[in-house]
Amino acid sequence: MSLAEATPFPGLKGAGSGRGAVTFLPPRAALTGPAEMLLLRPIVRGPWVLQRTPRLAAVAWGSHPQACTAWTPSRTHGTWSPGDGSRRWKVTAVGALLGLGAGLAYGDHRRRAAEAEPKAEAAPGAPYPVFTRQEVGRHRSLAERVWVTYGGEVFDITDFVELHPGGKSKILLAAGGALEPFWALYAVHSQEHVLEILRAYKVGELSPEEQSQPSQGDPYSGDPPRHPALKVNSLKPFNAEPPAELLTETYLTPNQLFFKRNHLPVPAVDPASYRLRVEGPGGRVLALSLPELKGRFPKHEVTVTLQCAGNRRAEMSRVRQVKGLEWGVAAISTARWGGVRLRDVLAHAGYGEEEEEEAGEQHVCFEGLDKDLSGAAYGASIPYRTAMGRGADVLLAYEMNGEELPRDHGYPLRVVVPGVVGARNVKWLGRVSVRREESPSHWQRNDYKGFSPAVDWDTVDFTTAPAIQELPVQSAITEPAPGATVPPGELTVKGYAWSGGGRGVVRVDVSLDGGRTWRVAELTGEEQRPGRAWAWRLWRLTAPVPPDAAELDIVCKAVDASYNVQPDTVEPIWNLRGVLSNAWHRVRVTVAED
Amino acid sequence: MSLAEATPFPGLKGAGSGRGAVTFLPPRAALTGPAEMLLLRPIVRGPWVLQRTPRLAAVAWGSHPQACTAWTPSRTHGTWSPGDGSRRWKVTAVGALLGLGAGLAYGDHRRRAAEAEPKAEAAPGAPYPVFTRQEVGRHRSLAERVWVTYGGEVFDITDFVELHPGGKSKILLAAGGALEPFWALYAVHSQEHVLEILRAYKVGELSPEEQSQPSQGDPYSGDPPRHPALKVNSLKPFNAEPPAELLTETYLTPNQLFFKRNHLPVPAVDPASYRLRVEGPGGRVLALSLPELKGRFPKHEVTVTLQCAGNRRAEMSRVRQVKGLEWGVAAISTARWGGVRLRDVLAHAGYGEEEEEEAGEQHVCFEGLDKDLSGAAYGASIPYRTAMGRGADVLLAYEMNGEELPRDHGYPLRVVVPGVVGARNVKWLGRVSVRREESPSHWQRNDYKGFSPAVDWDTVDFTTAPAIQELPVQSAITEPAPGATVPPGELTVKGYAWSGGGRGVVRVDVSLDGGRTWRVAELTGEEQRPGRAWAWRLWRLTAPVPPDAAELDIVCKAVDASYNVQPDTVEPIWNLRGVLSNAWHRVRVTVAED
Repeated sequence: MSLAEATPFPGLKGAGSGRGAVTFLPPRAALTGPAEMLLLRPIVRGPWVLQRTPRLAAVAWGSHPQACTAWTPSRTHGTWSPGDGSRRWKVTAVGALLGLGAGLAYGDHRRRAAEAEPKAEAAPGAPYPVFTRQEVGRHRSLAERVWVTYGGEVFDITDFVELHPGGKSKILLAAGGALEPFWALYAVHSQEHVLEILRAYKVGELSPEEQSQPSQGDPYSGDPPRHPALKVNSLKPFNAEPPAELLTETYLTPNQLFFKRNHLPVPAVDPASYRLRVEGPGGRVLALSLPELKGRFPKHEVTVTLQCAGNRRAEMSRVRQVKGLEWGVAAISTARWGGVRLRDVLAHAGYGEEEEEEAGEQHVCFEGLDKDLSGAAYGASIPYRTAMGRGADVLLAYEMNGEELPRDHGYPLRVVVPGVVGARNVKWLGRVSVRREESPSHWQRNDYKGFSPAVDWDTVDFTTAPAIQELPVQSAITEPAPGATVPPGELTVKGYAWSGGGRGVVRVDVSLDGGRTWRVAELTGEEQRPGRAWAWRLWRLTAPVPPDAAELDIVCKAVDASYNVQPDTVEPIWNLRGVLSNAWHRVRVTVAED
Repeated sequence: MSLAEATPFPGLKGAGSGRGAVTFLPPRAALTGPAEMLLLRPIVRGPWVLQRTPRLAAVAWGSHPQACTAWTPSRTHGTWSPGDGSRRWKVTAVGALLGLGAGLAYGDHRRRAAEAEPKAEAAPGAPYPVFTRQEVGRHRSLAERVWVTYGGEVFDITDFVELHPGGKSKILLAAGGALEPFWALYAVHSQEHVLEILRAYKVGELSPEEQSQPSQGDPYSGDPPRHPALKVNSLKPFNAEPPAELLTETYLTPNQLFFKRNHLPVPAVDPASYRLRVEGPGGRVLALSLPELKGRFPKHEVTVTLQCAGNRRAEMSRVRQVKGLEWGVAAISTARWGGVRLRDVLAHAGYGEEEEEEAGEQHVCFEGLDKDLSGAAYGASIPYRTAMGRGADVLLAYEMNGEELPRDHGYPLRVVVPGVVGARNVKWLGRVSVRREESPSHWQRNDYKGFSPAVDWDTVDFTTAPAIQELPVQSAITEPAPGATVPPGELTVKGYAWSGGGRGVVRVDVSLDGGRTWRVAELTGEEQRPGRAWAWRLWRLTAPVPPDAAELDIVCKAVDASYNVQPDTVEPIWNLRGVLSNAWHRVRVTVAED
């Protein structure tokens, strides 16, 4: 059984730590949450809003206004700027990818759409019925009809689904909710004729009264708005991953789609009064403001893939129950991070490269500004050598893909440790210190460690395993989706591959027959720098579908620069926390009849 | 089927490159080779030789005279010195391990041995029959009777085999050949009462005429003598591995047992005229004599495990034929290496740490003094960053386990690249240079690379895969032997585990039921330094044998510090050169009836 089949609504399953205070909702319900309401309010104004909507929506979702045009990150200025596609790190965001082809396709489909007969069209001049967002949210599939909102209007686009130039699966991501966040991402939609198509499907209007206020006393009430395409694994704290098929559309993951992994409520940090506390040798303490950090140390940019230790946990919990969020294959994302080098800051504080050799192993400890109800902060540490080695690219980052760091990703400053498990990349960074011991944090000492499949909760001793730092080689299939029906003839399989420790991806093998025979996939995305391959490769394979196959058991496995490979199966790497799930990834699909 | 079952006499199978000029002999036949003769000549003198023998044998086999007493390496002076067992790196060689217990055991067994009735005992006073070494070599099993030689005498020790304090399997290693090399290794034998036991089994004397001279014109005629316990995979060039069960008796592998992997004849290097050519920036060339190397640069010692890329190839060739020597699980060994740091020598030649960052990736190229018939030398290269990084432990080594580097291991100077495949550890080092490109050597460009199982000799393109540098995580079972019969009750399984790139071993899982259930093994041997874990861990597991089991399918798998694991099976990592064979290791044994 596929991952997506097993966990269509992972949010419904609930999470560990925050269970007491949390109301669990299916992912689509995020569309009707309080944050959603606040964001949509300014644009609930009827069809004339079109010209303004993309810009407003883009702002609302935390992206740059220019997001509505083709996105190309500008390396030198650290902002997204339109139209500049000539940079050597050839990154193009989703909108640009879909740009030309989809634009032409829309021209073609406008005609076909006009010929279609919208089922729920109201009589001309008659008032439209009024719906709540909850009512709209019930229409999420072809069987229940597919409804969406745009501004204050409700549309039944069921009959357009098959006509969608970007494909059925993409348009269904918005089913039951608002179109704006998707249109902000896919700039091709900001054309008048697209709205004309939509108008033909209008079935109602949104009730203005159904907008609720954030509840008082909820520690999560200050959390930022999130992109509704995210598959929510836990709302409080917020943990979500993008749909797998969106993940590999772009080499850099758009900030809104970048997987979110919060352990606690998102702190509201005032940038003016913010100070980073750096504890130097001999009791000296630095308190660095944001302007001081940006002014005193050279800006350094690195493209880094971050992966949650629990990525692909759902596959492990199908073997035996594990404790943890039910992540699919997309708790991994890639961004271009900008900031200052941790080694520069530590050197400024008085630490040298020689430190460790003289003193034995030391650790750089980080503390976040996110705190639990007892006031305890999130914390983690990395080995001193990881921070201070020559060419170490560990960042204190204030930019993500050319934008100011989004709140969900650690605004105003976070740690980015290339090649190391997400959990050590502490967000909302408050304090840095160098110690003889690892961070005393729960998450360093009693979590994020790997154990034998023989170890259970009765026998586990967290002191016996090292804290996860570098992650093992990983790859997964993002297209086709599990359970999909693929046409006979030729099939294109897509996915990602990455390894920890700066080890590049040297090969991805793909099998269509469950691992009996293999083909070598084509690696795409940026070339990797030897020894400092911090970011993933994307890959694709186009291969003939065996003529007699009714089903395909698609498998991928990657090889990294140390020639480490992924293990064949999940069972022997099963562990009670469901971390380090990197067995071959399998996706079973049906072949359509000729 | 087990590895040892598949290749009882690997030498008989022949090798690739040297096939034309090579006569293949079973491993035991090495005992009757010319080198063996030369070595044994000085001690063919009858029983009185006992007091001298161990010392002479030790010298003959290249070990230190003090080898006859308990070996403990002295860290500061880099030599083996007797009796000092207090060093913190608690390494004890074979002799010491067997010392006390075996000594007592011999006392006990002397009585039992005296009671046994030697079958072939000659009448008192009668002259003994004379045998050739070839004739002795035919008696290698209990069925054929077990004969051994000691000095010029021949003994039938068949009835002593079961009484041997060190175990049946150990004494059978000497079957058909000379005892001296083993007694040199196991110092416990240098006691008068051991020889008394032996005398009781005398059945003949060796023919002095059957000693042959090295043949003329054979490029391999100058090769050094080797330890007869080695399992020979190819005689010319010489490639051999120790018996698996000896490999994990000691943390450091004795030099004579350290696996041998030669690509060409062993060059005879005159230490007086030897110069290491180091090509500095801008055409400057250094020519460093041995005294200059030892005098100018600080001595640096590192314990490093070396592994051949083809270790465990035999398991791969059982899946499908591969090209390469049929290595078992013991093409891996560990030594304490002493020498100068490559980075110190390169810095002296004018290279700096910054070099690479300014100039893009560079390579340190090595050339050996071993040459093929066309005069082409063995060569290899490593990335500049591997050589020059802070804390880089790459050595130009002139010592191995406290002894002068043996000829088979690169006398007088070799490269030791911790964490990197054996092939880059160039022996008999003649030249070092820094280049924009990898070594042009065949072995760098067209060999020692990994490929997909889909690639065969018709489709392989060596430019598409990176040269193997860091090796993936590895482990294997060394005891019990494949096909062994184990007693019911409790079983002890032993083995080794190691990973490339300085990544430590964090865990070894062992299964007795083919991988269905697992236990965690106890790690033994030296602790590893985080990030610089260059040497293996040994491991052991003592577990109850399931009462109803008639057979056990013992499996081991290791996890390294990046939480990389070994793949479950061989087939999906099969490659045409049979390198990187690191699937779970399996040993099937029979359980004796109660």
